[in-house]
Amino acid sequence: MAYIVDLRSDTVTKPTEAMKHAMVNSALGDDVYGEDPTVNALESKIAHMLGKQAALFVPSGTMANLIAIMVHCNKRGSEVLVGDRSHIFSYEQGGASHLGGVLLTILQNKPDGTFDLEEVEKRVRDGSDVHIPTTTLVAIENTHNCCGGKVLPLKWLDDIAALCKKHSIALHMDGARLFNAAAYSGEKPSRIVRDCDSVSVCFSKGLSAPVGSAVVGSYHFIDQARRIRKMLGGGMRQAGVVAAAAIVALDEVLPMLALDHKRAQILAKVIEGLFLKSFKVEPCQQHTNLVLVSLPPHSALSANLVLQRLRQVCLAETQGDCKTPNDEGVIVKAIEFNSKTIRFTLHREITDEALWLAIMKITYVFKELDAKYQEK
Amino acid sequence: MAYIVDLRSDTVTKPTEAMKHAMVNSALGDDVYGEDPTVNALESKIAHMLGKQAALFVPSGTMANLIAIMVHCNKRGSEVLVGDRSHIFSYEQGGASHLGGVLLTILQNKPDGTFDLEEVEKRVRDGSDVHIPTTTLVAIENTHNCCGGKVLPLKWLDDIAALCKKHSIALHMDGARLFNAAAYSGEKPSRIVRDCDSVSVCFSKGLSAPVGSAVVGSYHFIDQARRIRKMLGGGMRQAGVVAAAAIVALDEVLPMLALDHKRAQILAKVIEGLFLKSFKVEPCQQHTNLVLVSLPPHSALSANLVLQRLRQVCLAETQGDCKTPNDEGVIVKAIEFNSKTIRFTLHREITDEALWLAIMKITYVFKELDAKYQEK
Amino acid sequence: MAYIVDLRSDTVTKPTEAMKHAMVNSALGDDVYGEDPTVNALESKIAHMLGKQAALFVPSGTMANLIAIMVHCNKRGSEVLVGDRSHIFSYEQGGASHLGGVLLTILQNKPDGTFDLEEVEKRVRDGSDVHIPTTTLVAIENTHNCCGGKVLPLKWLDDIAALCKKHSIALHMDGARLFNAAAYSGEKPSRIVRDCDSVSVCFSKGLSAPVGSAVVGSYHFIDQARRIRKMLGGGMRQAGVVAAAAIVALDEVLPMLALDHKRAQILAKVIEGLFLKSFKVEPCQQHTNLVLVSLPPHSALSANLVLQRLRQVCLAETQGDCKTPNDEGVIVKAIEFNSKTIRFTLHREITDEALWLAIMKITYVFKELDAKYQEK
Amino acid sequence: MAYIVDLRSDTVTKPTEAMKHAMVNSALGDDVYGEDPTVNALESKIAHMLGKQAALFVPSGTMANLIAIMVHCNKRGSEVLVGDRSHIFSYEQGGASHLGGVLLTILQNKPDGTFDLEEVEKRVRDGSDVHIPTTTLVAIENTHNCCGGKVLPLKWLDDIAALCKKHSIALHMDGARLFNAAAYSGEKPSRIVRDCDSVSVCFSKGLSAPVGSAVVGSYHFIDQARRIRKMLGGGMRQAGVVAAAAIVALDEVLPMLALDHKRAQILAKVIEGLFLKSFKVEPCQQHTNLVLVSLPPHSALSANLVLQRLRQVCLAETQGDCKTPNDEGVIVKAIEFNSKTIRFTLHREITDEALWLAIMKITYVFKELDAKYQEK
Repeated sequence: MAYIVDLRSDTVTKPTEAMKHAMVNSALGDDVYGEDPTVNALESKIAHMLGKQAALFVPSGTMANLIAIMVHCNKRGSEVLVGDRSHIFSYEQGGASHLGGVLLTILQNKPDGTFDLEEVEKRVRDGSDVHIPTTTLVAIENTHNCCGGKVLPLKWLDDIAALCKKHSIALHMDGARLFNAAAYSGEKPSRIVRDCDSVSVCFSKGLSAPVGSAVVGSYHFIDQARRIRKMLGGGMRQAGVVAAAAIVALDEVLPMLALDHKRAQILAKVIEGLFLKSFKVEPCQQHTNLVLVSLPPHSALSANLVLQRLRQVCLAETQGDCKTPNDEGVIVKAIEFNSKTIRFTLHREITDEALWLAIMKITYVFKELDAKYQEK
Repeated sequence: MAYIVDLRSDTVTKPTEAMKHAMVNSALGDDVYGEDPTVNALESKIAHMLGKQAALFVPSGTMANLIAIMVHCNKRGSEVLVGDRSHIFSYEQGGASHLGGVLLTILQNKPDGTFDLEEVEKRVRDGSDVHIPTTTLVAIENTHNCCGGKVLPLKWLDDIAALCKKHSIALHMDGARLFNAAAYSGEKPSRIVRDCDSVSVCFSKGLSAPVGSAVVGSYHFIDQARRIRKMLGGGMRQAGVVAAAAIVALDEVLPMLALDHKRAQILAKVIEGLFLKSFKVEPCQQHTNLVLVSLPPHSALSANLVLQRLRQVCLAETQGDCKTPNDEGVIVKAIEFNSKTIRFTLHREITDEALWLAIMKITYVFKELDAKYQEK
Repeated sequence: MAYIVDLRSDTVTKPTEAMKHAMVNSALGDDVYGEDPTVNALESKIAHMLGKQAALFVPSGTMANLIAIMVHCNKRGSEVLVGDRSHIFSYEQGGASHLGGVLLTILQNKPDGTFDLEEVEKRVRDGSDVHIPTTTLVAIENTHNCCGGKVLPLKWLDDIAALCKKHSIALHMDGARLFNAAAYSGEKPSRIVRDCDSVSVCFSKGLSAPVGSAVVGSYHFIDQARRIRKMLGGGMRQAGVVAAAAIVALDEVLPMLALDHKRAQILAKVIEGLFLKSFKVEPCQQHTNLVLVSLPPHSALSANLVLQRLRQVCLAETQGDCKTPNDEGVIVKAIEFNSKTIRFTLHREITDEALWLAIMKITYVFKELDAKYQEK
Repeated sequence: MAYIVDLRSDTVTKPTEAMKHAMVNSALGDDVYGEDPTVNALESKIAHMLGKQAALFVPSGTMANLIAIMVHCNKRGSEVLVGDRSHIFSYEQGGASHLGGVLLTILQNKPDGTFDLEEVEKRVRDGSDVHIPTTTLVAIENTHNCCGGKVLPLKWLDDIAALCKKHSIALHMDGARLFNAAAYSGEKPSRIVRDCDSVSVCFSKGLSAPVGSAVVGSYHFIDQARRIRKMLGGGMRQAGVVAAAAIVALDEVLPMLALDHKRAQILAKVIEGLFLKSFKVEPCQQHTNLVLVSLPPHSALSANLVLQRLRQVCLAETQGDCKTPNDEGVIVKAIEFNSKTIRFTLHREITDEALWLAIMKITYVFKELDAKYQEK
C-alpha cells in the first residue's frame, strides 16, 4: 500500500463534514418549480457576493459558460472573442459552436492570461457588412487555468471592459476560480467582476463542494439563462442537496483558499531550490494554487514520463527515507498540461502533512530523473 | 395554517432517510475522471437492471433524452419520429432541433400512449432523395405522462421494434417512469426495454431521489453519450453524492411504486363514485400513479379555477368536517394538463393518511363546484 | 425514337426566346455589391407586385423559405407551425431544424391545403414556461403542391392572419406557385399575400425562368434576409443574367398561366370521362396546373408501375393510333406523389398539340392497365 | 462624364460574347433531376481538370466552402483549422459554425498565405478526451486573397498534406483563384490539388463567368455534397444557362489569366517607380492579379481617403493630361483591405488601354497625396 497525494486538480476535493451535514439537513423543494429554498439561498448569496442582480445554479462550469455565450449571442452570425488557452476554447469540446451556433474566435493569450487589447480592437467585427459576423461577446478567464492560475490585472480588466463598452460588446468572465483571484489580489470579488455582464463561478474546484457552478448576471440575463439551462437539460429537482454544500463552501472553504496559495508557493520554492536543470518553476510568476513545472524543450524527458514515475514506488524509496511514518511509499498524482509541462494543484485536502510527503517524493523523483536525463 | 397535500408531481419527492445516509457515507471521487465509485456502481446497476451494456448518469431526464437523440442522429439531415404528446416534443423546448439540429416529426399519440404503426411506416424517410431527411430514430415514452401514465402494451413495443429494425432505425425509450410501467405490468424492466437501443430513466420522479437520470445503451452508444454529456455541461464532479441516493431509490423505493398505483386507483374510484357531471375519471384506463380528471368541454369550469379552489381553505371547511385531526384546513396541489384536464400524481410522500385528507378535500371541492356549475 | 411529353413538373420548363434575349442584353453588375441593375429591377418589380417594401433574389425556393424561417425565428427555442404536406416539411430535408435550429411542428393539412385553425390555436406556445418553445412563425403554402395545386381560400387566409396577429406570430407564405393562385382566383397577388409578413415566389416553375426565386417582405426583413443569404452562400455575382429571364417571365409567361390550368382541366376531364375503376380524378377539386390521379388502395396497381408503362412504347401503339403524325410513339413522363397517386403537371411547354398526344397515350395506357388489373 | 476603371475585384467581370452565345445555345434540363447536360458537362470538365472523381456546381464560392466543411465535419464536435486571413474565416459570416455547428479554429497566416506546420501540429486535437473536439479538416486558400493573391508553395502543399494524412485529417483547398495559382506557377491545377480531399473553384472571379462555383472531390464526397447543397437551397433548375458560361470561361478566359498577372506587375512597378514615401508596393512579392498598396502606419492618410480621391475627377485633371483621348476624366475604383492597405485587382476587362488610363490616374493621385501628406 502507498499513500496517495492527489495534486491533479482542485476538482478532486470531497465534501467537508459541514457540507455533508448541510446536504442532509437543508430545506428542499423542486427547483424546476423554483421552490428549492436552499438553491434560492445559494443563488441570492452568490449574486450578492458578486454585486449582480441574480444567479442560476447549474451542474457544471462548462454549462455555466455555454449558457452565458448562448444568452449573449442571441442573434444569428454572432462571434465570441476568447483566449486561445482559455477553458472555453480548450476544454469545452467546441460546444459554443456546435450547440450554440456561435463563431469562437481565438486571440493569443499572453503568459499572464490577458490578451492584447489592440488585437481585440483589430478583431472586433460589427456585422455592418453581410460578409462578416457580429462580435457580440468577449470572454475572459480569471484566474487563468492554462496560464498557471494567473490573476488578471485589475487595470487590464478595466481596460477590456472599457473597450467592450465602446463597441457595445458584452463581457463574460469565466470565474471558475474567481475566489482564488480575490484571495490573491485582496480585491472583493464584486470589484473584480464589476464591469462583467456575466460571470460563471465554480463551487466544486478549490471550494470543495461536490457538484455545481453558478452563472451570475442581471435579472434579464438570468431569465434567459434559465430557459437555456432547461433546454440543455441542466434543470435539477431537489438541487438543494448539492446547493447546500456550495453554501457551506462559500462560508467555510472560501476563507481558506489563501492557504492553498501559500502551500503552492512552498512547493514551487522547494523545487526551485533544487537547482535542477530539468525542472523549472517560476514562484514569483505563480499567483494562486497551481504550480507549473517546465521540462527542457529538447530533453528526452516528457511530462508523461515524469507523471508515471511519480505514481510508482520503487524499493529504494521505502528502504530509504522517501516514505510515510508508517513506512508506506508515496504516490503523487499530477497532470500533464502539455508534453513539457506538469501541473500540480494545491487544494483543501492537501494538508501540511500531505504537502510534506508530496515534496519528499517530488524531490526524490526530480533528482533521480534530472541525474538520469542530464547524463544523456 | 393548513395541511398541504402536494399531488402536483412525483418530482416533488424529497430524499428518504436512507438516501440521506447514503449521500454522506458513500465513497466519492471525481466522475469527470471516471473515478466516482458510487456513480460507477449506479451506472452498472441500472445498466444491468435494463439488460444493457452500459449507462451514464446525467443531471436530468431532458438531458438524457437529448443525449440519446444527439448520439443516434449523428448524420446531417436526421429526423426523429416522436409522439405529439411526448415529453420530448412537449416539454423540452425543442432542444433536439435547436441544439442537435434534428428534425422532430410528430405522430399523433393515441390515448394509450402508442401511435399508429401504419402512420410510422408512412412517415419513415430513407434519405434516398436529396429532398428528404433520413429518419434515424423513433422515440417512445413509457409510461406515457401526457396520456395519463399509460403503460405501453408489450405487443406494441415488439411491433414498433420490429418496424424500426426493418428500416434500420434506432429505437429510444423515454423511460422516465419506466419502473412504474414494470410495476403495473409485472414485466421485468429489461424485458420492456429489450429491443430499445437506448433508454432514459429518471431517479427523481416516483423513485424519490433528489437529482438525476440515466441514459442506458451499448458500450459504443455510451462512449458517444459521454462526449455529448460533456459538451452539454452535464459532467459533474463528486456526483456520487446524488448517485448514492439513486442507488437507494432503486433498492428501497422502487419496490413501493405499486402502492402509488393502488392509491391512485383509490382516488380515481372515489371521484368516480361521486357521480358528478363536472368531473370525470376513468379508473380502468388508469395504469399507474397519475390520475387525470376531465371537465366538461362546454362548462364554464376550467382546470385553473378548480386548482385555485383546491388551494384555498374556506371557513365552512374548517368549521365542518373538511379538516385535519388538528383542525387545520387542507390544501391540495395539483397541476393543469390543459384547460379541461387536471392531473393528480401519487408518490411516496402521499401516505394513506395524506391520501385520506386529499380525498376529503377533493370531494368537498368537487361537490361544491359541481353544484355551482351544474346550475348554470 | 419517340416523342416525349414531360409532365413531371413545371420546373422542367426552359427559357423562352424572349428570356434568352434578355439574358444576354440586360445590364449587369456585381450583385454582391448591390450593383446589378437587372437584379435590382427584378427585386423592385416583384416587391411592388406583392405590395411589399422589398425583395431579395435567391437561387431557389428552398433557400427563400429557409431564409424566411431563419429571419423570423431569430430567438433561441423558436417553433414554426407548418402543414404536414408542405414543401417546407416534406422536401427541404429538414434544413430549418438542421441549419436554422428551429423546431418544425407539423399540423395536418386538409385536402384543400389549409389546416384547422383550432388545431393552430391549440399548438401555439408562447414560451412563457421554460419547458416550451416559442411559436414564432406559421408557414402556409399557396398554391399547395402536395394537395394537388389547391388555392387557399381567401377567407381562410384572412382568418389565419388574424390568428397570427392575435398571438404576435409572423406569417410566411411559400408562394412558389403564388401566381397560379392569382390566376385561378382572379385576386391580385398583393391581395392574396396582404397579411403575410414574408412571401417566397419561384420564377423557375410555371413561370419558366431557368433559375431563381425571391423572398419578399419589409425593408427590415430583407436587410436580415440579405445577411442570411450571404451566410448560406446564395449571393451571386452577375445574377442579372438569370434575373433578366425572371423579369420576362413575369411580363410574358405570367399572363399565360391560366392556359395551363385550362389544359389541366381538359386532361382531368378526359380521364374522368374514361370511367375507369382504376384511375380517379376530381376535376372540380382541381384548381390549377396539377392533375392528381388516384389508384385504388387495394389494387396491385402502383404509381410506379403506371409511370413505367407511360414511359414505354409498345409495338401495338405505333402500329395502331397511339402515335404522332410522324409515326413516332409517345412517351409521357409524370411523377409519383405516393404509391397510389400520380401527378401530371401542365406548363408552358405543353402546347395543345403536346397535350393531345399525352391524352392519347394516357388514355391508351390507362385503359390497358384498367383492363388488366380489373380482371384480377 | 468620366471613364471608369473598376479595379475593385475580378468578380465584377461581365460575361464575354462567347459566354453569352453559350448561355442561350446550350442544351438545358432540370438539374435538380440531374438532367441538365450543360451542368453535367461542366462538372465533368472541372473534375477532370482537377484530377478528381466528381464535381458539383453551386451558386457561390461561399457555398462551395460551406458544403465542403459540412461534408468533412460530419461528426459532432468537429473542428476545422483555417488561416486567420482566409476567406472562410474572414468573409463567410461564420456560417461554418452557425449553420454547420463546426468549431473554426484560426491559425496565423504568414505573409505568403501559408501557416506554420508546427502550429498546426500543436493545434490538432484527436477527440480522445471528452473535453476536446476532433480536428477533422484543415482548410487552405490558394491563391490567398488577403495575403495579396499569393500562390502557396508546392513544397508547403505537400508538407501540409502529409501532416493531414498522418493525423487522418481531411484537406480542403479554397481554390476560388486556383487557376491564377496554376498560371503563375506553371503547375497543372491537378498537381496543385493532388493531395486535397476537396477543392472549391470559382468561375465568376478572374474567369469572368457571371455566376457560379464548383466543389470538387471523390464520388462519395460529392454524393454528400449534393445533399448539403439541396438543404442550403443551392439546387438550381436550368442551371445550364450559367454553367454554359463557366465552360466558356475555362476554355477561353483561363488561358488569358497570365495577362492579368503581367498587367498587375506593370501597375506595381509603375507605383514602385514613383518612389513615393506614402505608397509602398512589393512587385517581387506579388504573384498574381492583386496589387496591394500599403500606406505608412502613422500617416494621416487612410485607405478610405485614397479610394475617395481616386473616384473624384478634379478640374486640373481634365485641364491637364490626366484624361482620356476624349477629354473625359478618369475614375479608378479599388477596395480597402484595411485602413492602411488598398487592393487593386486586374482582370479580363482591364485592357492595356484601361490599364494605361488607370496608371495615369493613380500616378496623378498618389503624387498629389504624397506631396500633401508628406508636408505634414
